[in-house]
Amino acid sequence: MLSTPVTSSTAQPQKSTLEKLRRAKEAAVSVARLSTDEKNAVLRSMAAQLAENQKRILAANQIDLATADLRSSSRDRLLLNSERMSVMAEGVRTVLNLPDPIGQVVEEWIRPNGLRIRKVRVPLGVVGVIYESRPNVTVDATVLALKAGNAVVLRGGREATHTNEALVESLVQAPGLPAGAVELLDSRSRDSVDELMGARGLVDVLVPRGGAHLINRVVEKATVPAIETGAGNCHVYVDRAADLDVAERIVVNAKTQRPSVCNAAEKLLVHRDLASEYLPRIVQRLQCAGVEVRGDEETRRLTPGLHVLAACDEDWRMEYLDLRVAVYVVGSLQQAIDHINEYSTKHSDAIITRDEESARQFLNQVDSSAVYWNASTRFTDGGEFGFGAEMGISTQKLHCRGPFGLVELTSTKYQIFGSGQVRT
Amino acid sequence: MLSTPVTSSTAQPQKSTLEKLRRAKEAAVSVARLSTDEKNAVLRSMAAQLAENQKRILAANQIDLATADLRSSSRDRLLLNSERMSVMAEGVRTVLNLPDPIGQVVEEWIRPNGLRIRKVRVPLGVVGVIYESRPNVTVDATVLALKAGNAVVLRGGREATHTNEALVESLVQAPGLPAGAVELLDSRSRDSVDELMGARGLVDVLVPRGGAHLINRVVEKATVPAIETGAGNCHVYVDRAADLDVAERIVVNAKTQRPSVCNAAEKLLVHRDLASEYLPRIVQRLQCAGVEVRGDEETRRLTPGLHVLAACDEDWRMEYLDLRVAVYVVGSLQQAIDHINEYSTKHSDAIITRDEESARQFLNQVDSSAVYWNASTRFTDGGEFGFGAEMGISTQKLHCRGPFGLVELTSTKYQIFGSGQVRT
Repeated sequence: MLSTPVTSSTAQPQKSTLEKLRRAKEAAVSVARLSTDEKNAVLRSMAAQLAENQKRILAANQIDLATADLRSSSRDRLLLNSERMSVMAEGVRTVLNLPDPIGQVVEEWIRPNGLRIRKVRVPLGVVGVIYESRPNVTVDATVLALKAGNAVVLRGGREATHTNEALVESLVQAPGLPAGAVELLDSRSRDSVDELMGARGLVDVLVPRGGAHLINRVVEKATVPAIETGAGNCHVYVDRAADLDVAERIVVNAKTQRPSVCNAAEKLLVHRDLASEYLPRIVQRLQCAGVEVRGDEETRRLTPGLHVLAACDEDWRMEYLDLRVAVYVVGSLQQAIDHINEYSTKHSDAIITRDEESARQFLNQVDSSAVYWNASTRFTDGGEFGFGAEMGISTQKLHCRGPFGLVELTSTKYQIFGSGQVRT
Repeated sequence: MLSTPVTSSTAQPQKSTLEKLRRAKEAAVSVARLSTDEKNAVLRSMAAQLAENQKRILAANQIDLATADLRSSSRDRLLLNSERMSVMAEGVRTVLNLPDPIGQVVEEWIRPNGLRIRKVRVPLGVVGVIYESRPNVTVDATVLALKAGNAVVLRGGREATHTNEALVESLVQAPGLPAGAVELLDSRSRDSVDELMGARGLVDVLVPRGGAHLINRVVEKATVPAIETGAGNCHVYVDRAADLDVAERIVVNAKTQRPSVCNAAEKLLVHRDLASEYLPRIVQRLQCAGVEVRGDEETRRLTPGLHVLAACDEDWRMEYLDLRVAVYVVGSLQQAIDHINEYSTKHSDAIITRDEESARQFLNQVDSSAVYWNASTRFTDGGEFGFGAEMGISTQKLHCRGPFGLVELTSTKYQIFGSGQVRT
């Protein structure tokens, strides 16, 4: 149990961002040398600490909720309760039970000169995470980073300051955790974000989890390596050979099941050959579910009396994260593919069709991290993919692409075993 | 054969950097859709074009050599002759014969809900390369990028301008190569480097091949993703349990076999227990080979009369790339490991020892891309590792680390095969 009361001070009020980063860098050496059993013991204690300190953590969360001036969707993201605390602790145990990637031999071979070359999985070092209001990220990111042998530096949302402090104060109680292995930066200062982005040599990878604004700031300013996670302007394309019932079920699910997340569909492309039959049906169905529908000229012409608003150019690029969709009629599969490659954020895009040839073409030519045939874009998720836990969804092409977790928080190195070989 | 004479104009004098990048971006879509056979046919033609245009290329190289004001080592890097031309063409055929990574299924599994998830290897898109005087990079980088399904944008050294223009003019003669798939930027303008680094959305990965200055510029300025290749402040540590004959052979090889390259040893660490026996011997041996030896106080005390210069603090960080070495005496294996982790560029470091326990500790704890037990650091090379060809040696931890080639010029994506699944 924590012995000090939760106050409005930071968890480690005396330390600057740079001091915390240096501590983490030093701690990373110790974390890297922990055995699988030692790491699992730390995670087990962390799960227990979360349960033991639940009352204190929920009280801190109440302070944040009382202070914050938030829309209800943001309030909901910030809110903790005993059920959500249990889910967090369960998440810790899930990671605990995942195989340890560190030390895994990825490849091994012997050269004609007798050199044995082994590619082995090693920790990255210090993982930095910038995120917003969801406090579960504090716990998820920490245990994923630690299990992969890394120290972690967290920079959470300002509105979750007390909650994150209470969570980290609990987590660091775990016996066996090297000092400095989990550092929480001051979320009340914007400087701490810039300092983290610019901490070349102290931070080995930065994972920005947030909107386009944060990602752009990282792209422009960061000197540390980053994995962009990101915005999802996701498309569902209903092909001329689509089963309209399947198309309806998937479109409604992808758009409405959880509209505020990055894998929700934002755009609907419909092949001209079935537009006159399908459009009135799906527009009504979406409107019944509370979705505001925008459309190109042809969509509006084919849905008279349905109050489809005119989509403007910006609509094709926007990630709404809301109960809104823009509909576009295309003349061919190729036009759909080209439109998606032009406007999507390369996150998740789906084709609905019974035609295998068209599906293959779509899956091969759409340049996105996840491409679906007859399934909802909502499945782009580490849990749904079966990874056990997720650090984020990468929309970049280097290092990792799509949902990523434990293994992607590692690097590799080559160990070469010789008997005196020299190069001639 | 080329029909136009080589002049001092650029290969495509009418196009701006941005126009060339846009052409490459468009071409990348076409390159990605080439079959393995089509790509191999292009590479086969390229090898033939190099032979056919040899006279013209060597004439262009003579213009560069006559113009350039270079030290002899740089002249040698720039120089082409018929033997080097044959090696280049042979390199093209080596890449031609490597397996095509594109379309390879990295992993595939089925989820309980019936979704089949397949992780498949895909091209990155546009590969940008910034390099210095060696003209073989023009050919090597082009064929590696193309075989991995990418377009390539080259920015070579100013002193190799005519040579690179003649090489690219030859390469792009290959029938079946999409227009714009190989673009050569103006090497006489520094702006083209900045434009390439800042071409977010047009360039999918940038490979800077050059000194610390170029790498730092990329770190500070680039908004496109990059793979740092780099500086090698490589160490050989002679352990207390070293075989001194092995230690001598490896140290001399690592230092002198080709001192101007990144995997040459720059620092020698020697355990105190054998320093008085080993140091006079190895210092004399290195000096005989023309190496300037610097050392810490203890090294100098143990080598009286041998003209070992005093090493200053900067020496421990410097990459000499020359016949110079700095020697440091350590009291323990751990001190050697800590020194390397503090000062090395995390490229290649070696331990010489007969003690397996010490070797394991070194291989595990030294945080470098390649760590050697009883072998020369000079083996850190795509060819020596058996990769067939090399794009560079990554000193970063994300995406790839150490020598990298064809596979590392690709990304992956997830293709998900459903039958109407939605998320609940």
